[in-house]
Amino acid sequence: MAYILSVFAVRNLLVLSLALNVSLILRVLLLHDSQDGSFNGFFFAEQKEEALATKITRLSSSVSPSSSSLTMAQGDEDRVINLDHGDPTMYESYWQKKGDETTVVIPGWQFMSYFSDATRLCWFLEPEFAKQIVRLHNVVGNAVTENRHIVVGTGSTQLFQAALYALSPCAEAEPISVVSAAPYYSSYPLITDCLKSRLYKWAGDARSFRENGPYIELVTSPNNPDGFARRSVVNGSEGILIHDLAYYWPQYTPISSPANYDLMLFTVSKSTGHAGMRIGWALVKDEDVARKMTKYIEINTIGVSKDSQVRAAKILKQLREAVQQSGLFSVSDFPPQLCMFLNRVFEPQPAFAWIKCEGDIEDCESFLRGKKILTRGGKHFGVSPKYVRISMLDRDKNYETFVRRLSTIRS
Amino acid sequence: MAYILSVFAVRNLLVLSLALNVSLILRVLLLHDSQDGSFNGFFFAEQKEEALATKITRLSSSVSPSSSSLTMAQGDEDRVINLDHGDPTMYESYWQKKGDETTVVIPGWQFMSYFSDATRLCWFLEPEFAKQIVRLHNVVGNAVTENRHIVVGTGSTQLFQAALYALSPCAEAEPISVVSAAPYYSSYPLITDCLKSRLYKWAGDARSFRENGPYIELVTSPNNPDGFARRSVVNGSEGILIHDLAYYWPQYTPISSPANYDLMLFTVSKSTGHAGMRIGWALVKDEDVARKMTKYIEINTIGVSKDSQVRAAKILKQLREAVQQSGLFSVSDFPPQLCMFLNRVFEPQPAFAWIKCEGDIEDCESFLRGKKILTRGGKHFGVSPKYVRISMLDRDKNYETFVRRLSTIRS
Repeated sequence: MAYILSVFAVRNLLVLSLALNVSLILRVLLLHDSQDGSFNGFFFAEQKEEALATKITRLSSSVSPSSSSLTMAQGDEDRVINLDHGDPTMYESYWQKKGDETTVVIPGWQFMSYFSDATRLCWFLEPEFAKQIVRLHNVVGNAVTENRHIVVGTGSTQLFQAALYALSPCAEAEPISVVSAAPYYSSYPLITDCLKSRLYKWAGDARSFRENGPYIELVTSPNNPDGFARRSVVNGSEGILIHDLAYYWPQYTPISSPANYDLMLFTVSKSTGHAGMRIGWALVKDEDVARKMTKYIEINTIGVSKDSQVRAAKILKQLREAVQQSGLFSVSDFPPQLCMFLNRVFEPQPAFAWIKCEGDIEDCESFLRGKKILTRGGKHFGVSPKYVRISMLDRDKNYETFVRRLSTIRS
Repeated sequence: MAYILSVFAVRNLLVLSLALNVSLILRVLLLHDSQDGSFNGFFFAEQKEEALATKITRLSSSVSPSSSSLTMAQGDEDRVINLDHGDPTMYESYWQKKGDETTVVIPGWQFMSYFSDATRLCWFLEPEFAKQIVRLHNVVGNAVTENRHIVVGTGSTQLFQAALYALSPCAEAEPISVVSAAPYYSSYPLITDCLKSRLYKWAGDARSFRENGPYIELVTSPNNPDGFARRSVVNGSEGILIHDLAYYWPQYTPISSPANYDLMLFTVSKSTGHAGMRIGWALVKDEDVARKMTKYIEINTIGVSKDSQVRAAKILKQLREAVQQSGLFSVSDFPPQLCMFLNRVFEPQPAFAWIKCEGDIEDCESFLRGKKILTRGGKHFGVSPKYVRISMLDRDKNYETFVRRLSTIRS
């Protein structure tokens, strides 16, 4: 079993095996340790950052063969640890501390109608939720909301499909190509080709896309799974861009400037951690596109849960208030390396560790599955199976078990 | 303007123009008046029935040229009345009376995970909601739940698409035909052909469907828009059935026996009136079909709002308790004309009035739109534009304005 050591020894983890993410987060840890106690910026970022930094510290130290002080919880050895999904349960403890301030109370007779505001372009968008979206973006400074239409969706997943529907040229005989630079979010190909639509089709890695004519390019920034900031890579003249900005929040990456694109997607799952709400939103410049996206959501699910929108509004409001009270919000003339929101330089601290297995192991996902650790392999993201994505959004308890188990994989 | 009178005079309304629905509801009114006060069955049905009966009484009397006692609210004459959608706001006043019993309270840290129960086939189904679905069906007796998988959806609209995805034969070169007997629910063709899928295609009226090979037939019973009880009509050997039972509740139709089909769809929108929750459920016999439906919903929206499921569970629980307290629940040996749940004979009382314009008016929807009354025309349901569907689920105030306005359409 010597080869296992060669995969998971600290040296490999930090020097060979890890993509940039983990080491960058370690740097954040150092930054965090060395700062004067005055940091209390985006409270949420702080919380997240601490948790991630702690996780990474444990990860890098505990997988060393010399770390013998770890105790294994009884009966925990055989439990499967699922770090495949980016399930943001690590945020639970934060919201627990907020207590009643974010509790929502809904009487039985409320929100019965299909309609939220029949006079609005997006007629199923709750006005209070729309208001809180605009106010939060304005405070955080991560997206331009002026002259944008807001379309609410059942998560940003539905909005992505609504965007494909809205942007596909109806008259074309051939489906429009949908591309994204690898490694790309593993669900994009599945979603795009799920119903074998004649409107659009998945066409793979944007970097190798050479066809003429119109295409749709997905730009995920910071990227899932590898955490890099991104721009569009195809150089075609007829490209239509969708910007998936799920992770463009200060707990994941420096906010260098307000994003100002034609079609931007955000989601509550990654901004506040409330994945179970199934709420996302799109900021859309073109009225006709916003109208078609609304039409898709009308046909697909006749709107979006009002209960969830109302609760999301309350959570976003609380987030914004805390952000404002921090007193650290800064205006806009800082160089790009600086997070304009936190007013300090820091490196990306992504939600996922993007790890490469060196040596003989060709399929890292299968290898880890043999150890009852579920991750998502590189092939789902359009790259080699030597890579895996490990979610760092899980509850601390699960993460601790994962780290303990890694530490026992040795000859 | 004499022709208008010929369309809307009472005689036409009741003898020529109306489909069976309205007259049947009038019979219910008589039945209701003549009963001995002891009736307090399905409280919900009672409420609904009263409201419908009242609406129909007003409709039939007020459009008579002799009804001059109506007063028109000032400034209300020009307001557009939208009776196009079946928006169940008439149920609001019922739930208002229930007060705090159906209020739901959700702390900010709850329901953050994507998962409800990872060990379950439908991993995003909240266990409490599943429990309440089974208990309500068992009390009302409108569907068999034994040996069924429950799949929750963002309304039954999403479940319909999940069913198409699950039932379409993957290997086929040609899309499978999807049919339903006209008049059919106007959204079926739109949903089916929205993304121009290569898996399935809308093939129109089931009664004229003659192709060989596999097909999917939608059976909506009671039917939207005309309220009739239905069975499948295509006689092919390779038919796969989807039963949309949104209106198979005692407030709409007698419950003759528990529905016992392979794939049955229900929705909170029509059972409790909470359309804004976007919650529906499917009862599915085949495990593989249930699994594929779950997969579709995972790809489409990564599950279903937990906030809505939790609230729906509370509302369904309240509904069931009230039903049980009524003490009128009866067991199963009654002839089909009897509602097994209410233990008395009654005729269907649908959620929509299905009206036909006689005489020269070829496009009844356009004609009524000219009077600022929005309805949904027959062509959307696969039949002649002489028909329109009028929602009777609106708030009483809007319905009153509608009735008043009809009464003024005269020469």
